Formats: sequence, structure tokens, C-alpha cells
Amino acid sequence: MKHLAPDYVYTPAGLQRNTCIAISDDGIIDSIFDLETHAIAPTNVDALPGIALLPGFVNVHSHVFQRALRGHTHRPLSSKDTFWTWRNAMYAEAQRLTPETLYTLAQKTYQEMLAAGYSSVGEFHYVHHQPGGQPYAEPNAMSEAILEAGREAGIRVVLLMTAYAQAGFQQAPEEGQRRFCDDSVEAYLARVEALRSKGVPVGVAPHSIRAVPEHWFRAVADYSRTYHLPLHVHADEQIAEIEQCQAVYGCTPIELLERFGALGPGTTIIHATHANDTEIGLLAQHRSTVCVCPTTEGDLGDGIAPYAELLAANIPLCIGSDSNTRLDPIEELRWAEYSARMRYQRRRVLVADEMGSPGPLLLDYGTQSGARALGLQTGVIAPGLPADFIGVDVNHPAMAGWYSDDFLDVLFFGASSEVITQTWVGGRKVSGK
Amino acid sequence: MKHLAPDYVYTPAGLQRNTCIAISDDGIIDSIFDLETHAIAPTNVDALPGIALLPGFVNVHSHVFQRALRGHTHRPLSSKDTFWTWRNAMYAEAQRLTPETLYTLAQKTYQEMLAAGYSSVGEFHYVHHQPGGQPYAEPNAMSEAILEAGREAGIRVVLLMTAYAQAGFQQAPEEGQRRFCDDSVEAYLARVEALRSKGVPVGVAPHSIRAVPEHWFRAVADYSRTYHLPLHVHADEQIAEIEQCQAVYGCTPIELLERFGALGPGTTIIHATHANDTEIGLLAQHRSTVCVCPTTEGDLGDGIAPYAELLAANIPLCIGSDSNTRLDPIEELRWAEYSARMRYQRRRVLVADEMGSPGPLLLDYGTQSGARALGLQTGVIAPGLPADFIGVDVNHPAMAGWYSDDFLDVLFFGASSEVITQTWVGGRKVSGK
Repeated sequence: MKHLAPDYVYTPAGLQRNTCIAISDDGIIDSIFDLETHAIAPTNVDALPGIALLPGFVNVHSHVFQRALRGHTHRPLSSKDTFWTWRNAMYAEAQRLTPETLYTLAQKTYQEMLAAGYSSVGEFHYVHHQPGGQPYAEPNAMSEAILEAGREAGIRVVLLMTAYAQAGFQQAPEEGQRRFCDDSVEAYLARVEALRSKGVPVGVAPHSIRAVPEHWFRAVADYSRTYHLPLHVHADEQIAEIEQCQAVYGCTPIELLERFGALGPGTTIIHATHANDTEIGLLAQHRSTVCVCPTTEGDLGDGIAPYAELLAANIPLCIGSDSNTRLDPIEELRWAEYSARMRYQRRRVLVADEMGSPGPLLLDYGTQSGARALGLQTGVIAPGLPADFIGVDVNHPAMAGWYSDDFLDVLFFGASSEVITQTWVGGRKVSGK
Repeated sequence: MKHLAPDYVYTPAGLQRNTCIAISDDGIIDSIFDLETHAIAPTNVDALPGIALLPGFVNVHSHVFQRALRGHTHRPLSSKDTFWTWRNAMYAEAQRLTPETLYTLAQKTYQEMLAAGYSSVGEFHYVHHQPGGQPYAEPNAMSEAILEAGREAGIRVVLLMTAYAQAGFQQAPEEGQRRFCDDSVEAYLARVEALRSKGVPVGVAPHSIRAVPEHWFRAVADYSRTYHLPLHVHADEQIAEIEQCQAVYGCTPIELLERFGALGPGTTIIHATHANDTEIGLLAQHRSTVCVCPTTEGDLGDGIAPYAELLAANIPLCIGSDSNTRLDPIEELRWAEYSARMRYQRRRVLVADEMGSPGPLLLDYGTQSGARALGLQTGVIAPGLPADFIGVDVNHPAMAGWYSDDFLDVLFFGASSEVITQTWVGGRKVSGK
């Protein structure tokens, strides 16, 4: 058993002083108690002066290799760049990866995520095979590279194994997409099963309604229900996808996902930027989650998600760093709220707008809600849960002026991940001073 | 003469290696030369290993005292908070200020600005008098407090002296606005003149078409033309202002500013969030500038400025931190671009969108363009200009992967002011290690 005694601990009851966290040898929070009233003074207490411990952030949606593109796609690739021209640059980067380079890139990027305050990551992993599409001798060689990088960096990884079959509705994969594809949904599920049966935290991730046909969706959704695995899928990021879906199926992407049996409480829709009221109604009915990725959605010019309508329908929201162009959970959450304020031209959208309402906090979207989307028991500092924390420097100049009632507001509106000076995963300090 | 030899220097020709900057004793850049080919090795060279020196950022629009509100206005102040309910909290804060508390707050906030990479600030200063509206014994006591704080912190301050006369169109000032108001435009101009004649860098700032009547606007604009002073004015931040203006004058705020003779090449419109095509045409015709304040405009739910139309009309854009809720020029510029990308749903709006076009850079909006709006000769690293620099840690993990052609893109899309480890003003290192 070890004991941490930071100046403050943020628990579901708010910011606490004089609080000690006892952590068992397997990295689980054993108890949280008041140092002043505790009968027996614990031995072996690690004081953390000037630090407030908060739950670590959960990064629900990452394509780790895209970190290599940071800053390299902002000059014109063609006249009038869009999401689709950016995608060509991303495919070129994906073509170059080997298990070795992926490992190195992922290990460094996960270190950067930890330093930014993410203690868990959902890795939406789609570069599975050799560049021409042939499987590696070890079919999960690329997945294993990511898992090894995660272990080495110390971050909690949920591997969201991407299913990919085609370039578009009934179109064979393009050259740059071949290494994303399995030959059949059975081959894909065999790879998932190999990892799952080894105890690797996995989810399934049919890439999108463009890339995955109906019978794959049905088989993958069945598998996820059988084993209670998260199912993540991109939808409604770009208008062109919606138009194509309407042309081929006469419905919107989320309506199609429902037809295919892919909506449920374990489903997380990535983006939902252009979801309409019918689609939002379906997500509510099936108790599905939406993951927004504000820095990436800004970078790619996707648009602003219908935050007010999603929240009015009680749809849980969480965040992802997606392209990893920018790693900062505080900036993601601030700009989710600010984008929503700009869309609706009022001051409070994601956070409580009723006087006296406890309401959700930006922190909750970035922690608890994300943990739920990844099927993780984390995101709150409470006994029985993993000791996944960030340490905030309460004396940083950006934080000056906080008091205990609005500590989180000063953090989310006035600061950035630069005030996060340490990150703990499973009771172990994996980043920081 | 002193010499700085950082690893890199960003000049109008791009990122340079092996470059030395000679700085005269009065803080002006004397020369910039290649260390390897220079005939005589300079003595007294201060090496800056791992640092790239860039021009310091120019913060065109600050209300320094509003830093005290950081994080304190995000809980419901009333049902359905807006810009207008937020303004009540701001007025309450303004009521509490004394010259002494303003000095202390400004001094700390300017230090924070310097640490974030701003080397110059335009202080849009409107809390001039005692709470009831009576002048202080020294009529510019509050202005002097700000100037003294700027000198103490080491930041370059341009004092944008705000003219304020009324609550709205032909309405007497509200209680909370009395200390912003002068009794007459002559009394206001006498205070400006007192500072100007002492050599203080000043501009004039009729607050808005709401707060300043026609004859004040005309007198202030005349004064600014006579002495070649910048004229800054808030306009088109909120729809309600435009509706009131239409109701009273039958035109939009920027049309009214033109009628009042307040548009010209020295004019900077703050916000212009809801400017229409006619207004943008007028700004272009008069060669006026627009200052956007993305973090504040997000916070207050103002909306997204018509960036594409402003740029198509060749209107110079610059940035301001406005409420000082967040101090980070890189975030301001990134989210100016990202907000624009979301508005127009394409990938490149503020930066060049033509292949092979040199085009503007986000850096230029944050430096040169801002300097022009404040009437300052700074914003570029070139001989004859003040030695106002930021030092970027080129080895910071957020910067990993840059090469010299896209150094600025990695900085603006992947990093934040945390990578700025030093700030120089007039040849003196005023912040950092």
C-alpha cells in the first residue's frame, strides 16, 4: 500500500483538502480519507505540495500514427484543400509505416499524451496489414506494436480494432486503403478474438458506413454484443458522406447504422458533426454516445456538432484527439464549449445553464463519459477504481485567482495542459516531475 | 552593443541558421548577420542553444482588469446567460478597482502576457474615474497605474484611451458605467493630450456606437488624424447592437462609423463578428483593420467573424486577448483559423490557399499586422526595429517532427505558448529562463 497526500483531491464531492489516497499494490484506489481526522497516521506518505489531483483524462479517439503529419498538411496540397485532399496525405503516411516505425511513433506520441494529461486512450487502429494488403506473418503485428508502445509509455490503451472492407459503397479499396482491409469479416474477427482471448482491452470499430458493408456490420455488432465490447464508428463528419449515403440507401448514416443493428448503449459515434434531428433521436433511443474531436474537426473544417440538440436528448459526449495534431484535453474541452457557444450565440451549452443546477462539468465529458465509451472503470477518483490521476500545479500563473468553487472553471477556461505537471496511471507516476 | 546567437532566427526571409543579431544599447536591432561568413567575430555573444527567435506577438486589444474575472463567470449568473449578463459581472469588477489594485492586477497580468509571448499590448482602457464618475485628483491616475504596471513588467504598452459618454443611443450612463465617462469630449481629449504630450504611446478609442454620440466621434476622429494616432472602436460583436443601430439610425454600426468620419487607415474595428458585405466594403475602401479576439468571442458566444469575406476584401486582420480569460497568442491564431475552417467547411482560410502562393502566415496576423494597428514599428526581426522577440524551445515534444519549411505550421497547429520559453522587449529579456 502506498499513500499520496496532495494539497487537494478532486472527488465526486468536489475539491477536498487534507485528503490522503491509499493505493494498493495493484494500482487500485483502496481508500480516500481525511488526514486530520484519520485515527492512525499512515506511514510511507508521498506528499505532493502545490498539486491538486484530478482524474486522468480519457482520450476516446486516437489515430496515433497521424501524429507524424503534425504541421505538414497546412500548405496547399491542391487547390482548395478539404478533408478529402488531407486524406491523401494521411494515406501516404500510412503507407510508410512498419511495425517498428509504428512502435517508435506510438511510444513517443503516448508519452506526449501522458504529459498532456491523458491517462487512457482508445486507439482506433486501422493500419493492420502490409502495404499491398497481405497479412503480416503475425497477423496482429501492427496491433502488438501499438500495445507494446502503450505499455512502454505507461498509458492505458483500449485497442479499437478497425474493420475496413471497401473504398466506398460497393467500391473495391483504393491502393492506399489496401493495408487497412481484411479479406473477410471472419478474418477480421479472428484477429480481434486472438487479442481478446489474451486479455487485451479491445473494442470493435467498423470504420464507417463507406468502408464497411451491411453483412460485416451485422457480424461485428453481434460479436460486440456477445462479448460486451465497445463499438466505435465514424459518422456524419462530412456532408459528402451523407449525400452518398442518401443516394445509395435513401437514408442518413446513423439511420443506416440502426438498420444494420449497429446502435446500442455500447456504441460510440465519432464526430456526428452533421447529425440531424432524426439521427439524434435514434442515438437517444439506443443510448449511444457521441465522441467529438474539436481540434481535428477545426483543422479539417468539418463544422460544429449540434451540441445543444445532442445534450437535450441526453446523449453522453466525450472527447478524442483524433489526428493528434494537437494534444491537450483542456483545449479540446474548452473549444467544444466555445464552438457550441459560437454556434448558438449564447454563453453556456455543454455546462449547466440552470441556476443551482449541479449539471455536467467539462471535466466529466473528458473523464467519466470517455471511460464509459471505452468500457473502462476509470474517470473518477473513488475507492475500487484505478489510481489514474493528473496533478495540476495550483500555483501556476494561469491558475491565479481560483477559489475552491470555481477551480475547474479557471482550469478549463484560463489554462491549458501546461499546468498539468504529472500523470499517474494505475498508481504509478508515468509522466512529470 | 550586445549580440544574440540563437540556433535559429525567423526573419522575413524565413528560418535562418547560424545567425547573429546585434542589438544597440537602446534596444534596437543594429544588424543581422551570418556567423560563419562574418568577417570579424563579435565579442560578447550570448548563445541561445535550442532556441528559435521569432518576432514577439502583438496583443492589439486588452482590457487588463478583466483578468480578475477569469473562471468566475461560467456558472449561471441568471437564466440563459449571454454577453449582456456577463457584462454585469464585468461592471461589478470594474466598480471595485482603485489605482493601487489596478496597478497590481495589471502588473501580474502583463507578466503573464509576456510569458505567453506577447511583447506589446494595446490597452483599451475605460475605467478612468472614481466609482461615482468624479475625476481623480490626478485625472489620469488610472492610466498612470497601467503605464507603471507595464514599465514594471517590461511590456510595450500602447494606451488606447477610451471615450465613453452614455449607456446607449441617447441614454444616460448606467450606475456601473459612470466611472468610464468623461463629462465632455473636451475633458476626454484634455486627458489624452496630457499623456500624448508627455510622449506616452497613445491611441484614441471611442468605445462603441452605443457609448459615444456623433459629435464626440467627430472630435475624436479629428484629433486622431491631426496627431496620426490609432483609432480603435468595438463594432458588430452582438446582433442586439446592430438591431438597435438599425432602429435608431437606419444603418449598421460600421456604416454609422463612416457617416461619423471615424473610418480611415488608422482605424481598427474590434470584433466585426457580424459585419455584412456593405460594411466590409466600407472597411476596404477606407483601408481600416479588423481585430478578432477568438478566445473571448468563443467565451461570450459572439459568433465567428466573416473571415473569408474580410480577407477577400484585403482587410488586415490582427488579434487581441480582450477579456484576458486566456492568454495564448498561438491558441488565438489557431482558433481564428479553425473557427473560419468550421464556418466555411474548408481547410484553409486565413493562410494561403493557392499552391505556390507565399500568402500570409498566422504569424503575420499576430505580429506585423498587430503592430500596424497600434502604430508601432515592431513585429518583424529586421535592422532598425526594436529587439522584441520570443524564444521558442525547438526541442519541446510538441514541436517534434518540424523541418525548416514548416516550422511555423508545427508551432501554430501543434503547440501552444508553453513552447515559448523567453520573451524579449527592446533588447531586454523580460520573461523566461
